[in-house]
Amino acid sequence: MNKAGKIFVVGLGPGDRAHMTLEAKAVIEKSDVIVGYKTYIDLIKDMIEDKEVFSSGMKKEIERCTETLEIAKQGKVVSLVSSGDSGVYGMAGIMLEVVSKAESDIKVEIIPGVTASNAAAASLGAPIMHDYATISLSDLLTDWSLIEKRLHYAGQGDFVVCLYNPKSKGRQKQIEIAREILLKYKKQDTIVGIVKNAKRDGETVVITTLKDMLKHEIDMFTTVIVGNSNTYLVNGKIITPRGYKL
Amino acid sequence: MNKAGKIFVVGLGPGDRAHMTLEAKAVIEKSDVIVGYKTYIDLIKDMIEDKEVFSSGMKKEIERCTETLEIAKQGKVVSLVSSGDSGVYGMAGIMLEVVSKAESDIKVEIIPGVTASNAAAASLGAPIMHDYATISLSDLLTDWSLIEKRLHYAGQGDFVVCLYNPKSKGRQKQIEIAREILLKYKKQDTIVGIVKNAKRDGETVVITTLKDMLKHEIDMFTTVIVGNSNTYLVNGKIITPRGYKL
Repeated sequence: MNKAGKIFVVGLGPGDRAHMTLEAKAVIEKSDVIVGYKTYIDLIKDMIEDKEVFSSGMKKEIERCTETLEIAKQGKVVSLVSSGDSGVYGMAGIMLEVVSKAESDIKVEIIPGVTASNAAAASLGAPIMHDYATISLSDLLTDWSLIEKRLHYAGQGDFVVCLYNPKSKGRQKQIEIAREILLKYKKQDTIVGIVKNAKRDGETVVITTLKDMLKHEIDMFTTVIVGNSNTYLVNGKIITPRGYKL
Repeated sequence: MNKAGKIFVVGLGPGDRAHMTLEAKAVIEKSDVIVGYKTYIDLIKDMIEDKEVFSSGMKKEIERCTETLEIAKQGKVVSLVSSGDSGVYGMAGIMLEVVSKAESDIKVEIIPGVTASNAAAASLGAPIMHDYATISLSDLLTDWSLIEKRLHYAGQGDFVVCLYNPKSKGRQKQIEIAREILLKYKKQDTIVGIVKNAKRDGETVVITTLKDMLKHEIDMFTTVIVGNSNTYLVNGKIITPRGYKL
């Protein structure tokens, strides 16, 4: 009888090895095969020198999952890796969907990681200490009208708002529209944190306001966190108070 | 001249050592002193045998921060630890506030961790693959009316909703009201995941619906994740699809 194959979907955290979990490291080390988008494979190159590696380009998510399943069916332990937490706009869902559609009984285990909002928040201070909404501005897979609707409600609810995928070469206007929508409910001087490459090489941190946020560089490596009505700035750190009386 | 003191605010992750980050471990190991709520100190007891430890009971958050600052002022490196991510309903904000109020120039660094929503999500499958709102049902520090308002908007926006602090001995009604509010916008058969002790000893995972969720045990060690209108259940796993066409 063949050894049973298994799939781990592993969130590597923000990219710097330091913020990977011990379990993510252990699972990668015990895997026979590693599958992932090339950029993520490069982050762990030194950990996987003795392993079979399948790396592929962007927007090949379904192919990567299909490949992962085929390898697991051969009785191998496979880690499908992605950055951040694989369960937040990552590979966890599509991997489970591919296994389900194939009616396979291969076991899939999701290994959680530090997602971009938590990494960016740590570099900014404490902006998500209170209720927050996480919204991706990518309309590649989601109707833009739904994204706009969620921005409206997140604004009305005075949530702190974490924006993933705020801008890319092909998507320039989305962050402008998002800002306009949030400005219907949030003041011009609402504190905004912009973190590029959060908790990895080349990190840049900008603290600004809804009024001025578009004067700063925002790209696909950036997470934008917009405060709630109580968020304030002190000693260069953003704080969204939880309500303690000092 | 004294050695400069420093404060790390460290998120230990869900509680099981495996899901702590390498950086959290490294920072604790290099600290002179560890401060924290007793339950969290117990989680890392074996790592801190050679260190000074100050543990205290619940609801002593401000005292813990004040103590942490006093120790750092003596030139020591102090880790203030809490579970999950210290930046999400944790100790990061209040620590920064205490340092700011004391007009101290002691440096504070926040070390991010895996927060409860990400840990619970991994055990449920992939429920937070799309936009989500994180709401704490604890009204100890927040007006209940604001919590209700946010529940309404999260429901209207068809967000996946992650509920922290859903219930405790002294707060029994909040989860009932939250469910009623979400039912104004979400269907009775909306998938709900209930995870107690996510990714640590004694984990229990229940998958149910908004209709039936109150038939299951929910307490202060539980995270509740309520799906969006597309969330579905397959092979015992919750999937909120991101929109890939299989």
